[in-house]
Amino acid sequence: MKYVLTADLGGTSCKLGIFDQELELIEKWRIPTGINSETELLKEIATSFQKQLEKMESNVDECIGIGIGVPGPVNFKDGVVNGAVNLGWKGKVDVKGILSNLMNLEVIVDNDANLAALGEQYKGAGKNYSNVAVLTIGTGVGGGIISNRELMHGFKGASGEVGHLKVDHTEQFQCNCGHRGCLETVASATGIVNLCYDFQKDFPESILSELIDAGTLSSRDVITAAGQKDPLALKVLNKVGYFIALGLSYIASVVNPSHFVIGGGVSDAGHILLDSVISQFPTVTFPPAAEGINIVLAELGNDAGIYGAARLVEQYIK
Amino acid sequence: MKYVLTADLGGTSCKLGIFDQELELIEKWRIPTGINSETELLKEIATSFQKQLEKMESNVDECIGIGIGVPGPVNFKDGVVNGAVNLGWKGKVDVKGILSNLMNLEVIVDNDANLAALGEQYKGAGKNYSNVAVLTIGTGVGGGIISNRELMHGFKGASGEVGHLKVDHTEQFQCNCGHRGCLETVASATGIVNLCYDFQKDFPESILSELIDAGTLSSRDVITAAGQKDPLALKVLNKVGYFIALGLSYIASVVNPSHFVIGGGVSDAGHILLDSVISQFPTVTFPPAAEGINIVLAELGNDAGIYGAARLVEQYIK
Repeated sequence: MKYVLTADLGGTSCKLGIFDQELELIEKWRIPTGINSETELLKEIATSFQKQLEKMESNVDECIGIGIGVPGPVNFKDGVVNGAVNLGWKGKVDVKGILSNLMNLEVIVDNDANLAALGEQYKGAGKNYSNVAVLTIGTGVGGGIISNRELMHGFKGASGEVGHLKVDHTEQFQCNCGHRGCLETVASATGIVNLCYDFQKDFPESILSELIDAGTLSSRDVITAAGQKDPLALKVLNKVGYFIALGLSYIASVVNPSHFVIGGGVSDAGHILLDSVISQFPTVTFPPAAEGINIVLAELGNDAGIYGAARLVEQYIK
Repeated sequence: MKYVLTADLGGTSCKLGIFDQELELIEKWRIPTGINSETELLKEIATSFQKQLEKMESNVDECIGIGIGVPGPVNFKDGVVNGAVNLGWKGKVDVKGILSNLMNLEVIVDNDANLAALGEQYKGAGKNYSNVAVLTIGTGVGGGIISNRELMHGFKGASGEVGHLKVDHTEQFQCNCGHRGCLETVASATGIVNLCYDFQKDFPESILSELIDAGTLSSRDVITAAGQKDPLALKVLNKVGYFIALGLSYIASVVNPSHFVIGGGVSDAGHILLDSVISQFPTVTFPPAAEGINIVLAELGNDAGIYGAARLVEQYIK
């Protein structure tokens, strides 16, 4: 028993990885997802694993199990995915059953955001501390909570859905979830653009004005402009930092993690945004829950998901 | 091994209980706390247990261990309490060490609010479900989170400090924690009175006007007036219900419990307040985290703490 097989399914490609039993990454590669049905896609993953094992002059008998992350709601106990819309999967797909039949190996399935969180906690910026919360800020805001070194799932798998903490009580922007004021509406890539349009009238001299007028502004433009000390961009990132800090304050009072890890595309804004979160967090958080807390940037980038998948195999498949 | 000894320390009295090994309560009684030093108080507890065991024609050899709840910050691992101000304890007190020396039994110590939560989860309104959050609403707002049937403690024991979730973004009222807008400022006994003073000018006909003018209004008056359909009292409890619902929404998105249990003196407002929370919870909560959730009143009253202490002995002392 030497190897742990891992997969992180996304809308356009699936990242695959093989780890050794010390959870060191040996190989990683990608295959396209796209137009395949769920069964075809899972078959391709199995075939791709088998080819790679052959290359390594190994086979499934030398593997401990498979960990796989799927973008959608997962029943962690039975490994069934229910409505992974970004993959075009309708209804329930028994990922665990299908993949373990194909490979003759034990399979464990979890939500992709949860696995990215677990990867960061174990091998990334969380440095294997017991209690870590991870926020992934990209197109939306996702997350995962690790308590006593285990991923929290809760009653129906909604633990760590921190993008929908209500932080904007002006409720300016509608969220995809149907409510208003969610963290995702003011701290995601879309949220940054939302706030920029909102604040622009006070900053006619901003270098972003042209993009705003043309309606082509992206969050990346705002981040770049903040690097150039554009006052509008700085004000927006400061406000985004406040909303993230407020979201973290809720997580802190509920589960009191020692580390908050912030990842995802928006975290590329790096220290401007991070500093804004760090400076505002103590002003909104119950002091005993803020004491000694570290707020840091994620370290594993797009590999976080396969690291988390490998860790899950280590924890649940003996 | 037949018995579990339990204690729930409070500012004026200490509740003691003896359970059998099926965690059925056999005896409960109280001793005054008051002016004793910490060592004297723990000695009195030990003596009181021994007397009761004698009455039962038993002794410590027939006991599994002692569980004790203390109102203050507890280091769960080493059983040391650091600054239980309501007991007049300054600095650190090694409750576990002192009590286990006195009784020659294993001792486990936790915060009183945590134990009340565990008691409700195990034998009360939580009916031993795996994931339960308990809010205790009295003079302040406390709580405890049970995940996978275990109390959460977090990095420094601040898990479940839900009284300090920022829910009132008008930040009208100062909280004892130094911040403004905490759940405790608008949903505790004090919070109910705060909101009543705030809303009174729109309700000159309220039956509470006289008490308001005299400055003697209590939360109990507001609850009684709501039972008599006084419009001011109903408006206040509706707003309190909103703030509690918002606090629950944060807990729901972070840990996704199946049951919320609401206890403490203010929950005596019973179904008027509970109905207000239940009806507003789905309007502020991420739908997947709200789905199938039960919001119920606590069932064990003042016995919750000793039930929780007994459960903790069952879980941690073999």
